[in-house]
Amino acid sequence: MSQFDNVSILKQANIYFDGKVTSRAVLFADGSKKTLGIMMPGEFEFGTEQAELMEITAGEVEVLLPGSSDWRTVVGGESFDVPANSSFQIKVKQVTDYCCSYLD
Amino acid sequence: MSQFDNVSILKQANIYFDGKVTSRAVLFADGSKKTLGIMMPGEFEFGTEQAELMEITAGEVEVLLPGSSDWRTVVGGESFDVPANSSFQIKVKQVTDYCCSYLD
Repeated sequence: MSQFDNVSILKQANIYFDGKVTSRAVLFADGSKKTLGIMMPGEFEFGTEQAELMEITAGEVEVLLPGSSDWRTVVGGESFDVPANSSFQIKVKQVTDYCCSYLD
Repeated sequence: MSQFDNVSILKQANIYFDGKVTSRAVLFADGSKKTLGIMMPGEFEFGTEQAELMEITAGEVEVLLPGSSDWRTVVGGESFDVPANSSFQIKVKQVTDYCCSYLD
């Protein structure tokens, strides 16, 4: 899907890690939410409350997911799942454009 | 206005200057368009086709507008206009969140 229709978008961005990670919230009519974001090269750790589907629209990252001891490379067009109430580490290799869906 | 309702948003970001400037297109039902973007600290030059209203949601920039010889400081909550078919220079002092409206 190249665009989301009939949505609301918050005007103010979320800014993390001195702007190296930024995202914008997109709200759907069914009450669900996604964030569209940009990660600059660097190494970051994120915590989750809800389970997440992280789609990498463009760029390249390595992720260390909960319960795994191996870093996995994820490039544009690929995605990964993160369980609820967990955390994951990410090494951003190239400027990365992502879409994060929050799952029930 | 804290959010835009009943809009479409493109999933893929626009990435400029190695990711130091990124933006996302928001399309309105009346056919108008805005972009929501982030600028990292640095110095950039942008060209315009349509006239633009640049609202700084958060952050701090200095702009040199066409026909001016003075840099002007613009901070979160302030805005500036740029004429069509022109260019302007911008020095981003702090990570800056902006909303650009394209005017007829």
